[in-house]
Amino acid sequence: MTFIKPYLIRLSHCDATGQVFYPNYFHIFNALVEDWFYEAIEVPFDGFLMERGLSLPTVKLETTFSAPCRMGEIVDFWLTVTHMGRSSLRFSMGVSKDGVDRVRMHRVAVCVSQKTHAAVALPQDVREKIQAFMVG
Amino acid sequence: MTFIKPYLIRLSHCDATGQVFYPNYFHIFNALVEDWFYEAIEVPFDGFLMERGLSLPTVKLETTFSAPCRMGEIVDFWLTVTHMGRSSLRFSMGVSKDGVDRVRMHRVAVCVSQKTHAAVALPQDVREKIQAFMVG
Amino acid sequence: MTFIKPYLIRLSHCDATGQVFYPNYFHIFNALVEDWFYEAIEVPFDGFLMERGLSLPTVKLETTFSAPCRMGEIVDFWLTVTHMGRSSLRFSMGVSKDGVDRVRMHRVAVCVSQKTHAAVALPQDVREKIQAFMVG
Amino acid sequence: MTFIKPYLIRLSHCDATGQVFYPNYFHIFNALVEDWFYEAIEVPFDGFLMERGLSLPTVKLETTFSAPCRMGEIVDFWLTVTHMGRSSLRFSMGVSKDGVDRVRMHRVAVCVSQKTHAAVALPQDVREKIQAFMVG
Repeated sequence: MTFIKPYLIRLSHCDATGQVFYPNYFHIFNALVEDWFYEAIEVPFDGFLMERGLSLPTVKLETTFSAPCRMGEIVDFWLTVTHMGRSSLRFSMGVSKDGVDRVRMHRVAVCVSQKTHAAVALPQDVREKIQAFMVG
Repeated sequence: MTFIKPYLIRLSHCDATGQVFYPNYFHIFNALVEDWFYEAIEVPFDGFLMERGLSLPTVKLETTFSAPCRMGEIVDFWLTVTHMGRSSLRFSMGVSKDGVDRVRMHRVAVCVSQKTHAAVALPQDVREKIQAFMVG
Repeated sequence: MTFIKPYLIRLSHCDATGQVFYPNYFHIFNALVEDWFYEAIEVPFDGFLMERGLSLPTVKLETTFSAPCRMGEIVDFWLTVTHMGRSSLRFSMGVSKDGVDRVRMHRVAVCVSQKTHAAVALPQDVREKIQAFMVG
Repeated sequence: MTFIKPYLIRLSHCDATGQVFYPNYFHIFNALVEDWFYEAIEVPFDGFLMERGLSLPTVKLETTFSAPCRMGEIVDFWLTVTHMGRSSLRFSMGVSKDGVDRVRMHRVAVCVSQKTHAAVALPQDVREKIQAFMVG
């Protein structure tokens, strides 16, 4: 199953060339993960971090940029979960418009305790909701 | 040859976990590339973009995050050029402290005309300066 | 007339204290102005900048921060136009939730030609649409 | 006494007009305050936040932008402390080059406990160091 959401490319995403400055793609991808938490698996991301004391840092990223995005465009950001381990999650993510890829990313993230900085198992309720999302 | 520069991890780089928010690493890596232009190969990066009408967009990134950076740390960002094609550049970049890797990145960038959006050859003077940097 | 839009406070807006890092309020206020262009006065902001060669830089800001915003909150950002001159616009803007002010801002902006960097008259069609917005 | 530090205007500070996007001035002003902590009054800003559990949120800002800054410029950012209360600090800050003002800001900040969110007295050692800075 794929979570898809359109985002407006804003002035603040673009650099002096008028196109998205590549670090800002990761800010929007992070917004997408937040929105996936709130809207798709319905786990409040703020509670995940601030109340449960967990975080989901990135350990590996592979990103291919095949076409630029320009200010004023509304483009689709999409996310799938390709693997869930005890504490790790693999995401495929991308940006596309009219069926044409602009950006494609593989991201591995790990659930970590903010206290110990060590990997911990994903909470059972979160696992179940991600599992349900994966099967669609 | 390796270009190394220490950067202070600032409040604005960190998120609510007190550690660098991963998109902000790419902002600092971009600052490193700018500083490499100005200080190492001595090509003004602003002239490269604004006067020559070129840009150096990223086409591929592979990044591994092995340990976090915290606010107040001064860490080394480093850059080498591993390959120069007609219009492409391959960089190896990383973040380390006391000889221990925090982040490691491979980045492929391509020299592009801002007018045509097509790949163009790196200007001859820039090629020569990068070549001189690569041999050290 | 007031343009009001709810925005989610994201991880990327907050610093290590878990609250919005004040420079990020201005990023969201700028998103609000863009959304006001697209949605309220129906002037495409990208065309205003990229095709007409105009911009709307800020010349004066007065901002009062009376209560913090935290990650995960959805808060209302609002905007009114209090005065329109030949080339200048005065905005009152703010952030509130449940009728309580969090941030309040007065902003003066001027329509400028990107070529000459000089103030120019607001285009007639934009004036008329802003006038219509002001009377509601 | 005035704390002055030159900063390079980077690609990441500028928007599609090639000039500093105004919210990014506040990011640099915040970097200036951090550098003033570390270098001028020699109070580690990370310890102030992370170990002492304090923060210094902004309660009031007045900013005038009189001339733009462009990518590649190195401009002076400066800071003075105009008043120190029990828990409040008033800063005058600005950006200038060759003696000409680009930006001028008055900022009121208050020392706050991150636990109670209430204003608290500035720690005595910090007061003394700021007092010493003020008299020069």
